[in-house]
Amino acid sequence: MEKETKSIRIAIMGAGTVGGGVYKLLQMRKSDMYQRVGADIEIAKILVKSIPETRKDVDASLLTENFDDIMNDDSIQLVVEVMGGIEPARTFILRCLNSGKSVVSANKDLIAVHGRELLDAAEANKVDFMFEASCAGGIPIIRPLKQCLIANEITEIMGIVNGTTNYILTKMAQEGMEFEEALAKATELGYAEADPTADVEGLDAGRKMAIMGSIGFHSRITFDDVYTEGITHITSKDIKYAKDMDCVIKLLGIARNTDNGVEVRVHPTLISKEHPLASVNDVFNAVFVHGDAVDDTMFYGRGAGEMPTASAVVGDVLEVARNIKGKCLGMFGCTCYRELPIKQIGDIESKYFMRMVVRDCAGVLGNVASILGNNHVSIEKIIQKPAGCDTAEIVAITDVVQEKNFKAAMQTLNDMSFVQEISSMIRVYA
Amino acid sequence: MEKETKSIRIAIMGAGTVGGGVYKLLQMRKSDMYQRVGADIEIAKILVKSIPETRKDVDASLLTENFDDIMNDDSIQLVVEVMGGIEPARTFILRCLNSGKSVVSANKDLIAVHGRELLDAAEANKVDFMFEASCAGGIPIIRPLKQCLIANEITEIMGIVNGTTNYILTKMAQEGMEFEEALAKATELGYAEADPTADVEGLDAGRKMAIMGSIGFHSRITFDDVYTEGITHITSKDIKYAKDMDCVIKLLGIARNTDNGVEVRVHPTLISKEHPLASVNDVFNAVFVHGDAVDDTMFYGRGAGEMPTASAVVGDVLEVARNIKGKCLGMFGCTCYRELPIKQIGDIESKYFMRMVVRDCAGVLGNVASILGNNHVSIEKIIQKPAGCDTAEIVAITDVVQEKNFKAAMQTLNDMSFVQEISSMIRVYA
Repeated sequence: MEKETKSIRIAIMGAGTVGGGVYKLLQMRKSDMYQRVGADIEIAKILVKSIPETRKDVDASLLTENFDDIMNDDSIQLVVEVMGGIEPARTFILRCLNSGKSVVSANKDLIAVHGRELLDAAEANKVDFMFEASCAGGIPIIRPLKQCLIANEITEIMGIVNGTTNYILTKMAQEGMEFEEALAKATELGYAEADPTADVEGLDAGRKMAIMGSIGFHSRITFDDVYTEGITHITSKDIKYAKDMDCVIKLLGIARNTDNGVEVRVHPTLISKEHPLASVNDVFNAVFVHGDAVDDTMFYGRGAGEMPTASAVVGDVLEVARNIKGKCLGMFGCTCYRELPIKQIGDIESKYFMRMVVRDCAGVLGNVASILGNNHVSIEKIIQKPAGCDTAEIVAITDVVQEKNFKAAMQTLNDMSFVQEISSMIRVYA
Repeated sequence: MEKETKSIRIAIMGAGTVGGGVYKLLQMRKSDMYQRVGADIEIAKILVKSIPETRKDVDASLLTENFDDIMNDDSIQLVVEVMGGIEPARTFILRCLNSGKSVVSANKDLIAVHGRELLDAAEANKVDFMFEASCAGGIPIIRPLKQCLIANEITEIMGIVNGTTNYILTKMAQEGMEFEEALAKATELGYAEADPTADVEGLDAGRKMAIMGSIGFHSRITFDDVYTEGITHITSKDIKYAKDMDCVIKLLGIARNTDNGVEVRVHPTLISKEHPLASVNDVFNAVFVHGDAVDDTMFYGRGAGEMPTASAVVGDVLEVARNIKGKCLGMFGCTCYRELPIKQIGDIESKYFMRMVVRDCAGVLGNVASILGNNHVSIEKIIQKPAGCDTAEIVAITDVVQEKNFKAAMQTLNDMSFVQEISSMIRVYA
C-alpha cells in the first residue's frame, strides 16, 4: 500500500536573485501550502556554485556544490532550475528528467534553443517540465497560451517583454532623454545589467517570442529563427515625430502566423497611442494575443524582478506538486504538431517610418518619391522641412509594403548624392 | 484491458448565443482537436427547450428536449451547461456530477450563489467542474487565479467586468451623452438587453466579483455578500468634473482582503487616468489583481460575446477532455479553506467625490466644512462655484475616510436648509 504523500521534497538549483525569491516565497506560503495543493513543500537541497559565496539568508544546511547530491536522493521528486545559462543547466535538467524528477525552470535562454529536447525528455519519462517564469516574469502567459486559449487559432502574439528597454523608452518619451542617458539611469536603478547587450539589442525579448510563438502556433520556433533589432539607434527626435503622429515607440516582439509562414521579430515599432500596449510603461510588460474566437486579449504586469519571477516559478512548483499528489504527471509534452515555414525578414510586410537629411534643392523631394515608387513603396504621408545649411529633413510614413522593397529603396536613396543621411528607419504597427 | 479513449462524447445544454458559439468553435477546431488534447470531441446530444424553435445552424439530429437522454447515455462523459439561470441548470448539473459526468459551465448567476455545492459534488464524484466562462467572457481569469497565481497572497481584485456599462460610460465620456441616450445606443447595438437592470445596476458585475473573490482569497463569497450600486445616476457633469481632476469614471468591482475582513463591492468609481484600468474602454473588460509576490497584473479582453465566451467554454472542455484521457479528473475541488468575515459597506474606507447645490450665502461653505469635520470627514480639495439663481455648487474630494462617517455627514447635510440637493456621491479609488 502506497504511503500518502504528505510532503513533497524539492531541490533548487541556483540561489541568485530568482532562487532567493523562490526560497523566500516558499517560506511565506508555508502555512497555506497544504490547504492549497494537498501537500507541504520541503526544500531538501539547494545547489550553488560556491557555498562560502552564497547568500546568507537561506538555510546553510541545505546547500551543496554537488549536483549528485540531488541525483542520488530518490526522495526528491521536483527540481527547480534557476541557474540560468545553457550549460550545465541543460545537462542537469536532462539528468533530472531522465531519472524521473519533474523540473520547473525560468531559463529562457535554454528553452528558446533546447525547449523541444527538454519537453521530449519530460514526456518520455512521464514527468512534468514547466517554465511559466521563462517569459514575462510574473505575468501568467504560458499557461494561458497552452491551456486557457487552446480552443483558438492564435494568429498574433505581440509583446513588450523586456523591462530594461521599456523603461529606457519611457524615460526618453517622458523626459526627452537620449538613449545613453536613459540607459545610464536604468543601470543606476538596477534595471539594466553591467552588460546590457541582451536587453538593448532585443535578444532577451527574442528568446521569449520564440517560446511564446512556439506554444501559440503549435510550431517550433527557436531563437535562431527570430529577427532582432534593438533600440540603440532610437533618438528623442524620432520619439517626438512619433508623438506628432499620435504614436509612441516601443520595442515590440511580433509573432504572426500568416498564410505564407510564421514571422517572429523584435524591433522598435511606432504604435498608435490608442493601442493598449502604448500605455504599458516603465518596467511593466504586456503580451497581446489575438485568437480567432477570443479576439484580442492582453496580459500585463511585472516582466522581471525577484518576487514576480518567483511567483511564476512557485506557481509551477505547486502545480507539479498537485500532479505528484494526484499521480497525474506528464500530461503536457511538447505542444508543437506543425512544421510551419519561418519567413525571412525581407518577406514581411509593414508600414515604415523614415527620416532622412537631403540637400535642399529643387526636385529632391520628387527624386525621393520616384525612387520609392520605382521600388513599389507607396507613401501614406511625407513632409519636408528645412534643416539648416542648405539641407532639408524628409520624414515619411509608407503604406504597408514588403520589407525587401523598402530596404532596396532605402539602399538606393542612401547611394544618392543628394541624400546626406538616412537618419531613421522604424517599422510602424498597422 | 481498457480501450484507448479515441473520442470523447459530450452533451451541450442550451443552444442560445453561447451554445451556438460552442458548437461553431468545436467544428472550427475539429481537425486540430486530436493533436491538441489527444482525443476528438464528439457532440452526442444538444438539450434545448423547444426543438422547433431552435436555431437551424446546428445538427438537428443531435437535438433533444429531454434531459434524461443525456443522463441515460453512459458514453457521455462531459456536459456543457450554457442554459443560464438557476433552475433547472443547478439540478441538471448536480445530476450530471453525481452520475460521474464532468461539467463545464458559463453560469455566473448560478455559481455566484451555489458554487460551493457544485464544486463539492464534483469533488465527491471525482469529476471536473470548470467555469472559466462565468467571469470576464473570453479573458482567462479563473485559471490564472486558481493556478498561475496560487503562490501569492492576493489582496485585491479590481475589475471592469461588465461590457454594457463600460460601453455606456465610454460613450458618455467621449461624446458627452447622458446615461439614457448612451443606454439607448447600447441597446441598439445589442450591447444592452431589453431589460438592462442586471447590467446597469451592477448585479452582473457583482456575481463575477463574488466568484473571483472566493477563488482569489480562498474564502467563500456569495452574491448576497456583494454591495452593488449601478451607474444610472452618473451624469455627464460628473464625468466632466472627474476629467478636470485627471480621472475617469468606471463601474468597478473591488474585492479586497484586508486585515479586518473581506470587502466586495461594485459601484461607479473615479480612477486616475494613469491607471491601466482607465484606458479599458467600450465593451472591453479587464481584471486587475494584486498579489504579494507578483505585485500588479492585469488581464484584458472581451468580457462577453458569442465567440469570446465560447473560447473560454471550449478551453475548459479541452482541459477536461485531456483529464479524461489522462485519467486525472477531480484534481480541483473547492479552493476555499478560509472563513473570512465580510465587511459591511459602512465599514469600508474610501475617498469620496461629492457634488451638491447649496444656497449661495455667506458661511455656507464653512457650515459644510464643519459638518464634514464633525463626522471625521477630512477634505482633500473643495471648490465652490456660482450655479445661478442664488445657488452655488460645491464639489469636493475627501481624504480616505470611513464610509459610515461619510454617509452620516451627507445625511446631515441633506437635512440642512441651505443644501438644496446632494447631486452626486461617488467613491474615488486611491
